[in-house]
Parts: sequence; structure tokens; C-alpha cells
Amino acid sequence: MGRLTQRRKVLKLSLDAPPRRREDVMAVEEPLEIRLAGRAFSITMRTPGDDFDLVAGFLVSEGIVWSPEQLLSLRFCAGEDENGRQTFNVVEAQLAPGVALPDPRLDRQVVTSSACGICGTASIDAVTKRSRFALHDDDAGAAAGTDGTDGGGDVALDILLQLPDRLREQQQVFERTGGVHAAGLFSFEGELLCLREDVGRHNAVDKVVGWALREGKLPLRNTVLQVSGRASFELVQKAHLAGIPALSAVSAPSSLAVELAEKVGLTLAGFSRGRSVNVYTHPARIGTAVGHLV
Amino acid sequence: MGRLTQRRKVLKLSLDAPPRRREDVMAVEEPLEIRLAGRAFSITMRTPGDDFDLVAGFLVSEGIVWSPEQLLSLRFCAGEDENGRQTFNVVEAQLAPGVALPDPRLDRQVVTSSACGICGTASIDAVTKRSRFALHDDDAGAAAGTDGTDGGGDVALDILLQLPDRLREQQQVFERTGGVHAAGLFSFEGELLCLREDVGRHNAVDKVVGWALREGKLPLRNTVLQVSGRASFELVQKAHLAGIPALSAVSAPSSLAVELAEKVGLTLAGFSRGRSVNVYTHPARIGTAVGHLV
Repeated sequence: MGRLTQRRKVLKLSLDAPPRRREDVMAVEEPLEIRLAGRAFSITMRTPGDDFDLVAGFLVSEGIVWSPEQLLSLRFCAGEDENGRQTFNVVEAQLAPGVALPDPRLDRQVVTSSACGICGTASIDAVTKRSRFALHDDDAGAAAGTDGTDGGGDVALDILLQLPDRLREQQQVFERTGGVHAAGLFSFEGELLCLREDVGRHNAVDKVVGWALREGKLPLRNTVLQVSGRASFELVQKAHLAGIPALSAVSAPSSLAVELAEKVGLTLAGFSRGRSVNVYTHPARIGTAVGHLV
Repeated sequence: MGRLTQRRKVLKLSLDAPPRRREDVMAVEEPLEIRLAGRAFSITMRTPGDDFDLVAGFLVSEGIVWSPEQLLSLRFCAGEDENGRQTFNVVEAQLAPGVALPDPRLDRQVVTSSACGICGTASIDAVTKRSRFALHDDDAGAAAGTDGTDGGGDVALDILLQLPDRLREQQQVFERTGGVHAAGLFSFEGELLCLREDVGRHNAVDKVVGWALREGKLPLRNTVLQVSGRASFELVQKAHLAGIPALSAVSAPSSLAVELAEKVGLTLAGFSRGRSVNVYTHPARIGTAVGHLV
């Protein structure tokens, strides 16, 4: 599967078995920069592979081209990462003469990078926004535990495992439509502080963070953000910018979500399914040393 | 629930019962324009409600503010739709003096609208990209049937219902990670033409459409696009721009996805769950008059 998947050690915590480390396979997420007429046009987070198709389809979806003759060429921009490998994360599209470039007023979300190549650690830097709030500072669990599996932690495993069900119970719009994402902010003791629903998962998280800003509660120390779907790079970034130390997802995280969480000190949990959960980074915040566990 | 949900007639087609019309509740999706310093900064598709929280959280997530004093005010921009109702789809944020506006090179995706208000039909127009391909032209099923439930249609119901399983069977990355979306393009006869996976559902669709452009297959007449998750406005728009006449989702569509599909002549199906499916728009393309069906 090459660059489509990535192996990584994960700590599986369960109510029914001792913690164990195992290897997990993750979907790779990396940024792709699309260039038109020598100028950065868009950056999208994507799974590498079929990148020329992705760029061509993006141009169709933007209404820029609709016939193959309008797209003269696609090529990977030469660029190397710090280890001298081609990055394959920048594609330059050459349009036929006469194809109208998008209205300059319709500017795209663009993160300019001086180098042609973005990848690996450098790619994270290119798309990462700087947070005012350090997460390592409140990493109390890390101080208590040594290997991250036997410390008292900050949030008890049984509380963490209840959050998806508690989120679902409170989801009024989902209950009626089956069609929205939810984000719920909980204290380490399991108290629900704020829940928001939206058709866009990033919006649900923004609504929670905006509530906290307006309430004067940033940074959101000692909280867990539980989300209904998967954990993308973008969600980890939003949690970091709000000072949230732990993010728990019902489904899988992407590779870049894990890399960013590792780097910024955020506890990232995925596949939280009632009786077990995978912990990808900074497990010390999760306490398993509870009497009735294992 | 006010503007969070919307009721709409849907046609439920089943292998086990006659077609029946029933009322369905959908999550509402509408565009929200965020203005900074009097200038459009971003448009996001969202579920209305908690819009001030959404804007505040968006500003935190963009790294622009991190303390409540930096955000002086939030207000809905005065604006009315064609029926004279306040639209509540434009929010102006006033930042404190000294708060740095984002680097002008980091331009956002902005759809400029001359009026302050965008909503309802007008909002669709504001965010809709013009497609070169008309879908009504190939609406053969509509010609055959009268009420859209007894025509021969273009794609047989039993074939349509098999697509989610066939998509899943072919999903190599999902199989290994549980963490990606898929989009599969099928002929009306059920032949798989192209399947792509990606951490972003819009990317999976772009990869399919880009493949088709490069193969000279646009417009993609007589095809069904099956997606693994829900159907958003954005996915309906991508299908329309590629000339795909039918979009089928495993989960729910949003209200704006249905509105756009209705308008452009696209057959939109959701909750495709093996033995039944909800058809939200243009059902005539789906044939239920098959011998072994009801």
C-alpha cells in the first residue's frame, strides 16, 4: 500500500484486559499543494496516491476545466525533504491558453511555502498554526506515571470510555436526522461542559471552542474533547489552539493527526468503543490504575 | 429545533415493500459568511445555530484570537432574503485594536456577494459553481415513468442497493485502517468504473472525477456515484460539475444537498442500507418495475 498506510505503535486500553502495545495501521494524511500558473492555488490534506487525478478533479470541481484538452500537463514539482527524498507533495498544473484562471477575488486557502517541497516534519510545520497554549505544561499524568500505563492519570479510563455514549445521548439533531457530527467537551471528571452539533465536524469543534472563548475559559485545561467521527490533523490542531489536552474519537485518526498530537503533547485516543480504546500519543493522562480495572 | 432541522418528503424504496412517500427530517446546511474589518474572510457550510460561537471558534482555530478581549463584538449583518426575512447568514466580527489580521498572502476561500444577506435560494446561487453539463438532458427514466415510482428507470433498485457493499469490498485502505472515505463510480448496469479512497471524502470524489477527465470520459452520463458517508452540498456540486446524474450515500444528506440536487436534476439517494434506500430527488432514474421486486 506504500504511502497510503503507515504502521505505528498504539496502546490499547481495555476494561477487560491489561494495557498492551500493538502495531496499528493508519491511513496516511499529507498536505498536497496545487499550483496554477506558478502560483500556489490550494493546499488540501489528502491520502497520497492518484494525485494527478486529485488535482484534475479539483480543477473540474472548481469549474476551471471540463475537457481534457484544457489541462496541458500535470507534474510533481521538484523538491526534497531534509533527507533528500522527493516529496511528491506539490503538483503544478499547466492549463491550455485561453482557460480562464479563477477570478482573483475568489482566492483560495493557501499556505505559501518558500520551498517547493513540503513533506514529513516540514509539511506539518507548513500547515501548522502556532498555538498560544502549551499542552505539555499541564501534563500531570506524565509526571505520575513512568511508562504511561500505570499512572493515576488525569482522566480515568472508565470515564473516557463512557464519553461516546454520553455524546450520542445528548445529540438532539442526530437523533432526528442521523446526519450531523458532534463535539462534546468534558471535564476530566466526566462532566459535560459544552456540546455542539453540525453538518461539518470542524464546525462542531469551532462552536465548542468559540463558546469557551466567549466564556473566558481558554485555555481549556483539564478537559477532553470527544468527537463523533474520526480524528483528522485539523481537529488535533483546533484542540491544540484551544489548549485542550486530550482528544478522543469514535473512529480512526489519520497519520498526520497522530504526528501533530505527538509533537504538541496532546493525548489522542481513537476507536473509543465502549470497553476499549486505542491511545496513540501521550497516554499518561489516562488513568488505568483504578481498583475495578484489569 | 427551528432552523437546525427541516422536514421534507422522501420516497422510500425497498426490496421488501412497495415504494412509499414519507416525511423525513434533515439536518439543515446553510452557508455562513464571516466578515473581518468589513471584508469577507471565509464562507463555511454549517448547521445554523450557535453562529457567534462558530465565528469565535473559527477565529481561535485560525490563530487570530485567543483571549475574549481580542474580540470586541459579533453581530449579524443586516440583510434580507427575497421574502424580506432576516437571513442570519452573515456575521461581522470586530477585533480589538492591535489584533493582527491574517497575513494577506493567506487568503481564504471567499465567495463575494454583493448583498449582505445570503440565504435560501439566493444562498445556493452564491455558493454554486456553474456546471457545463446539464443533467436533465439524460433523464431517460423521467420520460418512461409518470410518478417516478413505476418507470423502468435507468438503474435497477437491486443494483443500486448493492453498491455500498461492493464499495466496501473493494476498499483496500479502509480494510486496513478503518479510517478513510471512498467514492465509487458505477455504470447503471452496476459495473465498477473507478474507485478511490481518501481521508477526505471530497478528495475521494475529486480523484474519481479527475480520473474521468484524464480518460476523456466527462460528462459521466449513465453513472451512479456511491459514497461511503453522507451527502453534503459539496458532493452534489462535484457530481453535477462532472455530469454524474445519480449520487447515492450510505448515510444522510443535508438539506442543501437535497435542494441543489432537486434544482440541477440529480437523483440523490441516502441511507442506502442493503434492502432499502431513501430517494430525495428525481426518483425516475431508479427502476423498481423489476420482476422479482414487490
